[in-house]
Amino acid sequence: MSNTDITGTAKVVFMPSGRRGDFPLGTTVLEASRALGVDLDTVCGGRAVCGRCQIVPSHGEFAKLQIVSEHNHLSESGPTEEKYKRIKGLKDGRRLGCQSQILGDMVIDVPEESQIHRQVVRKSADEIRDLEIDPVVTLHYVELPKPSMEDQRADLERIVAQLAQDWGLDGLAWDIQCLARLSPALRAGEAYGGEFKATVAVRGGREAIAVWPGFKDRVYGIAVDVGTTTVAGHLCALDTGEVLASSGMMNPQIRFGEDLMSRISYLQQNEGSAPELTSAVQAALADLVTVLAGEAGIDPQEVVELTIVGNPTMHHLVLGIDPTQLGMEPFPLVLDQGSSIRVRDLGLPVNPGGYAWFLPCIAGHVGADTAGVILSQAPHLTGEMTLVIDVGTNAEIVLGHKDRLIACSSPTGPAFEGAQITCGQRAAPGAIERVRIDRETLKPRFKVIGSDLWSDEPGFAEAIEGAGVTGICGSGIIEAVAELHLAGIVDASGRMQAKGLEIADHPNFRAKGRNFEYVLHTDDERAIYVAPGDVRAIQLAKSACYSGTRLLMDRMGTAQVDRIYLAGAFGSYIDVAYAMAIGLIPDCDLAQVASAGNAAGTGARIALLSAKARAEIDRVCRQVEKVETAIAEDFQEYFVAAMSLPHASDPFPQLEAWLEAEGLARR
Amino acid sequence: MSNTDITGTAKVVFMPSGRRGDFPLGTTVLEASRALGVDLDTVCGGRAVCGRCQIVPSHGEFAKLQIVSEHNHLSESGPTEEKYKRIKGLKDGRRLGCQSQILGDMVIDVPEESQIHRQVVRKSADEIRDLEIDPVVTLHYVELPKPSMEDQRADLERIVAQLAQDWGLDGLAWDIQCLARLSPALRAGEAYGGEFKATVAVRGGREAIAVWPGFKDRVYGIAVDVGTTTVAGHLCALDTGEVLASSGMMNPQIRFGEDLMSRISYLQQNEGSAPELTSAVQAALADLVTVLAGEAGIDPQEVVELTIVGNPTMHHLVLGIDPTQLGMEPFPLVLDQGSSIRVRDLGLPVNPGGYAWFLPCIAGHVGADTAGVILSQAPHLTGEMTLVIDVGTNAEIVLGHKDRLIACSSPTGPAFEGAQITCGQRAAPGAIERVRIDRETLKPRFKVIGSDLWSDEPGFAEAIEGAGVTGICGSGIIEAVAELHLAGIVDASGRMQAKGLEIADHPNFRAKGRNFEYVLHTDDERAIYVAPGDVRAIQLAKSACYSGTRLLMDRMGTAQVDRIYLAGAFGSYIDVAYAMAIGLIPDCDLAQVASAGNAAGTGARIALLSAKARAEIDRVCRQVEKVETAIAEDFQEYFVAAMSLPHASDPFPQLEAWLEAEGLARR
Repeated sequence: MSNTDITGTAKVVFMPSGRRGDFPLGTTVLEASRALGVDLDTVCGGRAVCGRCQIVPSHGEFAKLQIVSEHNHLSESGPTEEKYKRIKGLKDGRRLGCQSQILGDMVIDVPEESQIHRQVVRKSADEIRDLEIDPVVTLHYVELPKPSMEDQRADLERIVAQLAQDWGLDGLAWDIQCLARLSPALRAGEAYGGEFKATVAVRGGREAIAVWPGFKDRVYGIAVDVGTTTVAGHLCALDTGEVLASSGMMNPQIRFGEDLMSRISYLQQNEGSAPELTSAVQAALADLVTVLAGEAGIDPQEVVELTIVGNPTMHHLVLGIDPTQLGMEPFPLVLDQGSSIRVRDLGLPVNPGGYAWFLPCIAGHVGADTAGVILSQAPHLTGEMTLVIDVGTNAEIVLGHKDRLIACSSPTGPAFEGAQITCGQRAAPGAIERVRIDRETLKPRFKVIGSDLWSDEPGFAEAIEGAGVTGICGSGIIEAVAELHLAGIVDASGRMQAKGLEIADHPNFRAKGRNFEYVLHTDDERAIYVAPGDVRAIQLAKSACYSGTRLLMDRMGTAQVDRIYLAGAFGSYIDVAYAMAIGLIPDCDLAQVASAGNAAGTGARIALLSAKARAEIDRVCRQVEKVETAIAEDFQEYFVAAMSLPHASDPFPQLEAWLEAEGLARR
Repeated sequence: MSNTDITGTAKVVFMPSGRRGDFPLGTTVLEASRALGVDLDTVCGGRAVCGRCQIVPSHGEFAKLQIVSEHNHLSESGPTEEKYKRIKGLKDGRRLGCQSQILGDMVIDVPEESQIHRQVVRKSADEIRDLEIDPVVTLHYVELPKPSMEDQRADLERIVAQLAQDWGLDGLAWDIQCLARLSPALRAGEAYGGEFKATVAVRGGREAIAVWPGFKDRVYGIAVDVGTTTVAGHLCALDTGEVLASSGMMNPQIRFGEDLMSRISYLQQNEGSAPELTSAVQAALADLVTVLAGEAGIDPQEVVELTIVGNPTMHHLVLGIDPTQLGMEPFPLVLDQGSSIRVRDLGLPVNPGGYAWFLPCIAGHVGADTAGVILSQAPHLTGEMTLVIDVGTNAEIVLGHKDRLIACSSPTGPAFEGAQITCGQRAAPGAIERVRIDRETLKPRFKVIGSDLWSDEPGFAEAIEGAGVTGICGSGIIEAVAELHLAGIVDASGRMQAKGLEIADHPNFRAKGRNFEYVLHTDDERAIYVAPGDVRAIQLAKSACYSGTRLLMDRMGTAQVDRIYLAGAFGSYIDVAYAMAIGLIPDCDLAQVASAGNAAGTGARIALLSAKARAEIDRVCRQVEKVETAIAEDFQEYFVAAMSLPHASDPFPQLEAWLEAEGLARR
């Protein structure tokens, strides 16, 4: 309570919370907000240093609130506030809550950016969903009396008492690494004036994890997606969620095997080799966080929290847990719940008191990446029957709504990544990514990555000069197969057949034994074509994905989904209509089918910013029902039926109507 | 509840606790003990594997207990118990509590070794005080159903559920390193039979810190005393307290300075050098634990807990905390409370899930070593006014009783360790450790370390052949000075004076300028003698010690102490009568003055075995009043008065009486 010579009390209403109370005249707005539990931010604890507690006094008569509020019911701006305004600036109408005293009844608006639990609003598909920040790590500035011969309390006891007094932080644990930095921080802080001054980072209100000299008002976190092929991270400000840097690099585990199964085979064949794979991926994460901090221009010591998503094998390997058993029936995880691990136990060169929070895993083949996808796409918050598929060498599939979620994993293989395809390649400049085949002439046109022009448009040759046309990537092969089918060159069973087609001397048809290949492009260096085996590979992959989905729909007792999200790098690039045209996904209103971008990574970012989101996804993952495709009796049946394009028995009326409307009707 | 066809209930009384209850016939003794909270040990959880739950059924009529007990009120020994008896043996009259069913009213004796909280009885001065073991780490054997396609629970979830069911351990935290070993432990345990079988070490009932395949019934701890000069440790079984190995080595920090102050000077002059000193001492501790495990013949992974004592500088350096501020007024500690630190944060090669518990520090110069001394000598548990002095280059002094403790540190310097003494040396073979001077002839006789003979006894020359007589150690110089004083050669002020003595041509008196030296021994190689400066050095050291004590007595308002303990390596070797004769300690009944051995290390062993003792010493240390000798106005005054032998103004009537009785009266 500040000193004041005014007596009496005033009625105060905080908006938008509507919390109200009576306070002695002279109470500061910050004090009143704390007393009422109003969400008003502060890092400096009321010393006019951080400027986080800005409020707007409201004028006029508020009949609904039964209050009359006038501007002059707040004390005039004093020299401390004026100094802040001069140095850091203060918008018109804004006041510092810690410096403004209540002198009469009033309504006080707390702007969004003055709230600790501020909203982050979704801006694009790749952006995180609307989210209320619920900080895992908070900053607390304190000023302490220095020790003297009369007051020889230990540094720790001293600062613990001050944090309890100023911030109500009782019973704080102190990490030893944070403690080792306490004394230098306090004594470096002496430069700031006659008292010890320091800022302490507190995690979950329970543990002091980092300390800095003087005043500090921002710390950072990194959300990491550990993929089998690449590791990628976003560095964010923990108070606003702003992304300051994004980067990715290869997962160096690739030297132990290209894909997941080959790495598990390596582990099985080389007993005791798990630490090697752990070291490799932890070293990559260490490099990644260093690169990210460099890009963001911050000290890695300012990074105090990470979140990590990844498939179960990556999840376990990053943690130093041997995942060999994940490759053997019954595929049990070692750890499934969301877990906080000290960064120094992972060898990450950020603030050593910090933690990495691993999102929960769901089952042996449905990992923390899927948990991230769920958190990002939030099927558990909607009433609509939602299907989310993260397509990679495995498809992780989640189906359901707010009352029930069900999940499985299905082994699609690497075809969608361009492997096992004759002219296949990874998505990179020069790769064909879009394909159209004229229903009459049977001639193709296409687009390659790196150019916006179709191959039959003027300037295409110039546009691709240099890179050339080098192969077909995953999205390209899906469109090629779909168009071959729609054009009548590939029948519903997936056979390439020329019956009834004029293909004699056709430049795009090339005989190969008793079969033929369809040539998309020829130049001096190479021909890019689709072979019968390529169609078969795509059929197998899409069938694995579809039959997993169909199994879940069957278990859920639904024949129809309301909404579909395709997640993952591959899922972001494919045209959802073509995905449906080959029967990778079930029939659905195409307006309700969307790419979700790197939803797993987005989920990691959400978890980075919100303790509530962590609790939410941990709870949801424990409730997700797992379906094990490997032992589901009907899976094989679904698989065989799903080999057809788009499917042997499931109707696709919405797809057909869309093809009709788009003029893409089948020949 | 075991199957039985008997109905009805029986009254059971457990002794020595006297706990009683009624149980359905057929209840096992172990079950009944758990229901009543009786202290009956088990590691295997009732599977007749560990044999910890042995009990003795009592016969006869127990009027006081209102019960009639007969042997046959316990079920006969069945095949499981017989198998145990055959393999591991079972004393006559003993039964396994987990296998014996209650069939009627009975009295059951729980022998000492079947109690978890068993007593450890003091056997010698260096032994720990009578102590009830209160284990910090407990072992829990579990058998789990293996995962199947129908039960795919994660390994962690599986074992957590079993530990909750079998052992009532709810909400256990799991260290990540323990978790990383869980899956291999469970699967190695497959060799033991059809289920997963493992033993989990749980710390404080809250965290799983280690796991082993199959059944395991013992883990170990190490109590470490980190001295400025040496580091020493005892490896103990955590269930019995038995010491399996003891070892010590030099503190390699010696290369940064011989004593504490020179190391703090090094730190002050070399900013940022604290990590160097930390690495040095942590490396020594790592070596020490490896040596101890080797000596005890155990796997270092079986060591799951350590306790550490040391002066404040060592305490901080082992923790990685820069102690520079401890050398500067106002000497504030960074950390004072007792603290658990994960061993891997200290680089100790024991089980990585284990912890080291650092005993609390009391003040900037009164550290965890003094806390250990208090725990060992327990002045806080007695009504007698107790003085405990840990004599080293600093004397840490504690005075008081159960209602009040008061402590200080006083800089004695290295004279007691033989440094700053002309012929001084460390305590080692060849060093003079005992001295007597004939009051008439003024001739000395002495004993050297390594021989039990006095120098004037037959065979002495042969006994010391090889080592020879090389110098005087700390206890030797104290006796020499005391005897010189008692023989009238050194006056009360400490001056060597020949007035009234027949020293002309005396072989033991050697002129040196205007003074003389007193020669204890001469041979071909050297003369061992006491110089006037040596007496002065001892006066300064003992005066520092005495004046600190006197200051505490003054603050306590007492002129008399009831009991004195001298702790530390030096304190163990000096003859307490001579310590009093020079005025190192105040007057006291000599029967009540004793050496306490390495009391700091003993305190560390007590803390290793008992969680209750940890809570006790943490509480006591927070209540100890600290007296800062450096700013106490009366300290200088006490210091000057204490330069006299034994003291300028304090009377020593009990000492005088004792000297008289022993025939050691002063000349």
